[in-house]
Amino acid sequence: MQSSVKQKLLEAFSEANGEFVSGQALAEIVGCSRTAIWKHIEALRSEGFELEAVRKKGYRIIHKPDKVTENELLIGLQTEWLGKEIVFKETTDSTQKEAHRLAQEPFKEGTVVIAEEQTAGRGRMAREWHSPKYTGIWMSVMLKPALPPYKAPQFTLITAVAVVEAIREVTGLEPEIKWPNDILLNGKKITGILTELQADADQIHSIIIGIGLNVNQKEFPEELAEIATSLAIEKGEPVSRSQLVQEILKNIETYYHVYMKDGFTDIKKRWEKYAVSIGKQIIARTVTATIKGKALGITEEGVLKLLDDEGTIHDIYSADIEINKTAE
Amino acid sequence: MQSSVKQKLLEAFSEANGEFVSGQALAEIVGCSRTAIWKHIEALRSEGFELEAVRKKGYRIIHKPDKVTENELLIGLQTEWLGKEIVFKETTDSTQKEAHRLAQEPFKEGTVVIAEEQTAGRGRMAREWHSPKYTGIWMSVMLKPALPPYKAPQFTLITAVAVVEAIREVTGLEPEIKWPNDILLNGKKITGILTELQADADQIHSIIIGIGLNVNQKEFPEELAEIATSLAIEKGEPVSRSQLVQEILKNIETYYHVYMKDGFTDIKKRWEKYAVSIGKQIIARTVTATIKGKALGITEEGVLKLLDDEGTIHDIYSADIEINKTAE
Repeated sequence: MQSSVKQKLLEAFSEANGEFVSGQALAEIVGCSRTAIWKHIEALRSEGFELEAVRKKGYRIIHKPDKVTENELLIGLQTEWLGKEIVFKETTDSTQKEAHRLAQEPFKEGTVVIAEEQTAGRGRMAREWHSPKYTGIWMSVMLKPALPPYKAPQFTLITAVAVVEAIREVTGLEPEIKWPNDILLNGKKITGILTELQADADQIHSIIIGIGLNVNQKEFPEELAEIATSLAIEKGEPVSRSQLVQEILKNIETYYHVYMKDGFTDIKKRWEKYAVSIGKQIIARTVTATIKGKALGITEEGVLKLLDDEGTIHDIYSADIEINKTAE
Repeated sequence: MQSSVKQKLLEAFSEANGEFVSGQALAEIVGCSRTAIWKHIEALRSEGFELEAVRKKGYRIIHKPDKVTENELLIGLQTEWLGKEIVFKETTDSTQKEAHRLAQEPFKEGTVVIAEEQTAGRGRMAREWHSPKYTGIWMSVMLKPALPPYKAPQFTLITAVAVVEAIREVTGLEPEIKWPNDILLNGKKITGILTELQADADQIHSIIIGIGLNVNQKEFPEELAEIATSLAIEKGEPVSRSQLVQEILKNIETYYHVYMKDGFTDIKKRWEKYAVSIGKQIIARTVTATIKGKALGITEEGVLKLLDDEGTIHDIYSADIEINKTAE
């Protein structure tokens, strides 16, 4: 469907405020035949709109899907520059891959790639990320900070703070951060953050922050139900994805400015306030070792300080962590 | 020209050892008409082969270009795995760009992209790199070390040591390293190294090391002649590019193994032995500041330690440096 036809139809239904609009009236508004209108209605249905058709009355809209297309996101977006360029895909392999392809050529800082569905979404360490259609936020934010690569982990922490505060603002729920890149609700995962970079050895070219956020899933496949949840499940009602995206982008922009101007101190404080693991006994599994001990905190570089039983402090750059319940 | 025809022709000329081979004999070897042979000879000439044609005698080879195609490089390559997969391009925009495109999909560690010519070669900070056909080594080495991104600068230093020792071995010349990524001969640039990475915030996915090495240029454009030179100019005779490539790849593989097994200490010592700037008064121009002082050395992370006149030691991650002759 041409987007102009779609926009005209949606405006007509919006003005009708839930009442019926006759096929003849729609045909006149759009400027096509009644048969063509019927085809456009079918196309809208395939996009997730629920439309009732009654003989002699016409059509009315019962349910509008919570879409995350350019138009839905740009209206009401309160940022200066972040997300002003949106690359929307109905379906894509992965918004990260799409963003990496875009980053091969010059791009506008703050470009956001967002999709209704990912067929090959992935998390850290190339792990699969379940990202079904219309239920979550699958997006990648493209930045170009003039910084060396060793600063990159801080962007995972900036984004975690931005997402936690957006969820609190929009839903009232109180998520917790699990180092380095997960956000939990009631102990189950709702968000994964994947910060990737293209860089010279000493200078970042582009930093691509992938955010996968479970919003309106009503249930999860059996193998995930124990470890994953959605905002809708925890809150007991659907949550507006476009509002959440707008809030997340506003927060990332704000904290990015704070970080570039004043450094990491304020963000670190917020991060530690929301973090579930700090001060607890944890088990950290790195690529090469498993270390048990107390999580002391994070450094300015986003490195986890872990105190083991023998009094040695380990710098953990990357690991899967687990709260060590037997040690508490 | 099909490569099998080319190979058969080159083998025939190679066996003739500089003597003439008749068109009829060549036609029989290749299995085509004498007119077709003439066309194949023209094709070889366009690739840089000098061939003499004499009526009733046939053809003989006068000069074989020093090519860097897969076949030329694989024969005699003394590595275990590095460079066993070679992507050769007669011409490309930039071997780094080509390698980045390859790195979007799974690739074999140690893949080398090499080209006879780059139309848009570039150095650090996206600066242009002059890379005309058949005269230099324009290549990119693709590695996948399981390391965090902050280790990436060490790969520039590993590569600098590998290239310096390859040049010493093949030519007897004694180049010097200029931090962070240049190699000089008699004060003029012969090599630039560009280490780029694709990474998670905490884990390198791929590291792509670009090497631009001026080998057989006889002269440089006026704007470069003051600052750039080639091995051939400094040595006074042509140097085999394929031999140099093989030696560089062998050294990178060796030092990469040393580094992953025993860390950076041995490589750091070698690097400092070849470095021109250490111990000298230098001027370092970073993106944000110009700092004058004495270059003390490099850290395990490849960071330059610079002592200014007020006794403050600066950590320099990235800069252009210049020997400060007025201060000596």
